[in-house]
Amino acid sequence: MSAKSDRKSAVVLLSGGLDSATVLAIAQDAGFVCHALSFDYGQRHRFELESARRVAAAAGVTDHRVVGIDLSAAGGFGLSALTDRIDVPKDRQADERNIPATYVPARNTIFLSVALGYAEVIGSFDIFIGVNAVDYSGYPDCREVFIEAFQNLANLATAAAVEGRGRFAVHAPLIRMSKGQIIRTGLALGVDYSLTHSCYDPSHDCLACGRCDACRLRLAGFEAAGAHDPVRYRDVS
Amino acid sequence: MSAKSDRKSAVVLLSGGLDSATVLAIAQDAGFVCHALSFDYGQRHRFELESARRVAAAAGVTDHRVVGIDLSAAGGFGLSALTDRIDVPKDRQADERNIPATYVPARNTIFLSVALGYAEVIGSFDIFIGVNAVDYSGYPDCREVFIEAFQNLANLATAAAVEGRGRFAVHAPLIRMSKGQIIRTGLALGVDYSLTHSCYDPSHDCLACGRCDACRLRLAGFEAAGAHDPVRYRDVS
Repeated sequence: MSAKSDRKSAVVLLSGGLDSATVLAIAQDAGFVCHALSFDYGQRHRFELESARRVAAAAGVTDHRVVGIDLSAAGGFGLSALTDRIDVPKDRQADERNIPATYVPARNTIFLSVALGYAEVIGSFDIFIGVNAVDYSGYPDCREVFIEAFQNLANLATAAAVEGRGRFAVHAPLIRMSKGQIIRTGLALGVDYSLTHSCYDPSHDCLACGRCDACRLRLAGFEAAGAHDPVRYRDVS
Repeated sequence: MSAKSDRKSAVVLLSGGLDSATVLAIAQDAGFVCHALSFDYGQRHRFELESARRVAAAAGVTDHRVVGIDLSAAGGFGLSALTDRIDVPKDRQADERNIPATYVPARNTIFLSVALGYAEVIGSFDIFIGVNAVDYSGYPDCREVFIEAFQNLANLATAAAVEGRGRFAVHAPLIRMSKGQIIRTGLALGVDYSLTHSCYDPSHDCLACGRCDACRLRLAGFEAAGAHDPVRYRDVS
């Protein structure tokens, strides 16, 4: 038996952002053979998917699938700033703890559900997701209690679990980390953050705005990690 | 205030089959303003969606959305007989209690997740699904314990629930009914079952096979209900 056949496989949700690139590196470092899974759900910034492809290729994943979900057909999903024309909030104060306009209803539930089906088909019982409860405290589906509830559901929903072939584990290794800790972890594992994309409002030539919530968290994280962010910004001199 | 504005809205998962058509009638009878939701997920029988459209139109729903999910892009979802070329099981014995080949990994989890997002966007807290634990005992995601786990997840996953605007309820009114009871209920509520579709293996001119699990359950249900099945069969004389 080869060494490879002893390794467990995992499905890793990969958005093309900094967090999920770090999660992929963590899953690989833990010895998992990784199947990356991304979604084309009508997000405004289609080149997130290009970032996901570059991250997956650089990491040498076993495969990388992109599932199309036409949420716009369900009408109101376009209410979110990430999928429609609503202005992305800029220069928000850190103490604004309400749920941001960039919240997409049930997004992580939908992504984890598809990941669960994919994992069951390929015989994997491990799913990795880059949710974080520290910097995204406003998102209900970035909390540990949500991850635990989904894991419970997964073990009731699937033939693989009900027939006793295994127990699903939903891994959220970043959930308690600060952005600085995430970046330090990724840099130690060799993640090339120049391949990742975070900005909610990039220019047409893909320069990050430097002012949306995602950019501000990212820049503060690199500063906390004592590292330089290799992506290009248009608003930061 | 008009009478209509006092009525609660609900999202009703509508497949075009007998069960979900009955669920829609039950939800309307309970006073809900119904938003029907169907999925185009690469199923072999695209005219299921046409059945769903006819059922929705006949019921006079507020709207009917069809969400596209390209599960085939995720590779192995095609393992199921419903989405690929595997032969549909015919003439199975009733005591074969293993999970059928027509099981689609995590299907109801995925459908409910999208329904949850849609419900949150339109301000609804009620989701109806036509799962049934009696006739589909082999499907893990047709059990009450699954529905309860999803409802628990829904109330942790969404801004609407976490911010206290309401509590999500997942209604599965058929879950303990026999097929005969379902049909009697639907007939009493005026469901036109000629608009519905159940067969897993219809002919090109949409005649039901009469032999797959779905046809056999349906025919036995009509017999138990003492009623005539108005759809056309090719194998039943």
